[in-house]
Amino acid sequence: MHRVKVRVVEDALDANNTIARANRDDFDRHDVTVVNLMSAPGAGKTTLLERVLGGLGDVRAGVLEGDVQGSYDADRLASLHVPVTQLNTDNGFGGECHLDANMVRSALPALPLGEIDLLVIENVGNLVCPAEFHVGEDARIMVSSVTEGEDKPLKYPLMFRTCELVLVNKIDLLPHLEFDMERFLHHLEAVHPGVPRMLVSARTGEGIDAFRDWLLELPARREVPA
Amino acid sequence: MHRVKVRVVEDALDANNTIARANRDDFDRHDVTVVNLMSAPGAGKTTLLERVLGGLGDVRAGVLEGDVQGSYDADRLASLHVPVTQLNTDNGFGGECHLDANMVRSALPALPLGEIDLLVIENVGNLVCPAEFHVGEDARIMVSSVTEGEDKPLKYPLMFRTCELVLVNKIDLLPHLEFDMERFLHHLEAVHPGVPRMLVSARTGEGIDAFRDWLLELPARREVPA
Repeated sequence: MHRVKVRVVEDALDANNTIARANRDDFDRHDVTVVNLMSAPGAGKTTLLERVLGGLGDVRAGVLEGDVQGSYDADRLASLHVPVTQLNTDNGFGGECHLDANMVRSALPALPLGEIDLLVIENVGNLVCPAEFHVGEDARIMVSSVTEGEDKPLKYPLMFRTCELVLVNKIDLLPHLEFDMERFLHHLEAVHPGVPRMLVSARTGEGIDAFRDWLLELPARREVPA
Repeated sequence: MHRVKVRVVEDALDANNTIARANRDDFDRHDVTVVNLMSAPGAGKTTLLERVLGGLGDVRAGVLEGDVQGSYDADRLASLHVPVTQLNTDNGFGGECHLDANMVRSALPALPLGEIDLLVIENVGNLVCPAEFHVGEDARIMVSSVTEGEDKPLKYPLMFRTCELVLVNKIDLLPHLEFDMERFLHHLEAVHPGVPRMLVSARTGEGIDAFRDWLLELPARREVPA
């Protein structure tokens, strides 16, 4: 990469981080815990949210849906009766492949921050660029479906390295795949040693209680001084 | 999007197209047909190549492997005894999420263009940006796995719109999924009316002969005057 290009990229990420901190301040002012949910296309992010957001008890959740185009996932979540805000990235180009801090910032006026405790930002389905852009979140969760193969941590290391939790989804399909879980977890450990991981099936509900507990405990973990 | 940003993006795509034409000239000079193979991560591109490249008869194939990091797929293809060149996009940043014409151009000296008839460029797994960057290819093939869900043409329309062939992969898993093929094909038709599509399983080999025939007929189609 040419030095000029590296400089432009570094400047862009600096600017992004500045805006991410402003988002963070706004979230803090409203005492909202924020999760950035990332995965490849079709790994099951929305189905996981359908499973988990209904059972959060007193914790009031909201969703910011990032998509290149359309409101397909937001429409699916409408039946949950949680506030869902759509954010499309296709403004004036083929479409941005990720959310950045400024896009999230532009959606803040549409988010009912005073009425929620937990905001889940469902990022654009992509294993590369979303990992490069912080948006002001407290934690990053990445979903990896067993149908994608065991090699994904090795091929997309930054994504697996920058998250606080890995959900290994679609484990109901394991009997029908040649997926070697031990090998996947070995690759994951090589890329991000010790990262918490949960084996789940958004379809059958297996493992979802543990994921829900993790979400419910997140605000408390966030407040523990470093 | 601000007008300045739109302008920068348009300039970048203009520059990309200029370099793509230079690549195209080099491929033509060596009479090499070039396919740009695209999909989400884990849709089965490499397994498809493992299936199809061994049986091309007199057509000598080569592969350019695009990955953010590593040579995992190139290593898998080594047993096929076709020339495989690795192209990594992680130079100096978290990694580019797509191949562009200039990256492919930088790999040309390592490609044995005089010794192959068909070059398959396996793009980075991503349903957004690869569609925006031509690299000098004759045809684009995109692979959509049934495990990703029926909604993908609606959510990533540019990718489905810019390709000459859609391979719907992993159909061996259909009995274990709630995937509605009719609905998927309806969405595909809405986004790219009439695009050729084939239902395949890289694992079982179902539908692979038709894909191989399509590849073998590509040079002839290419030479038909418009």
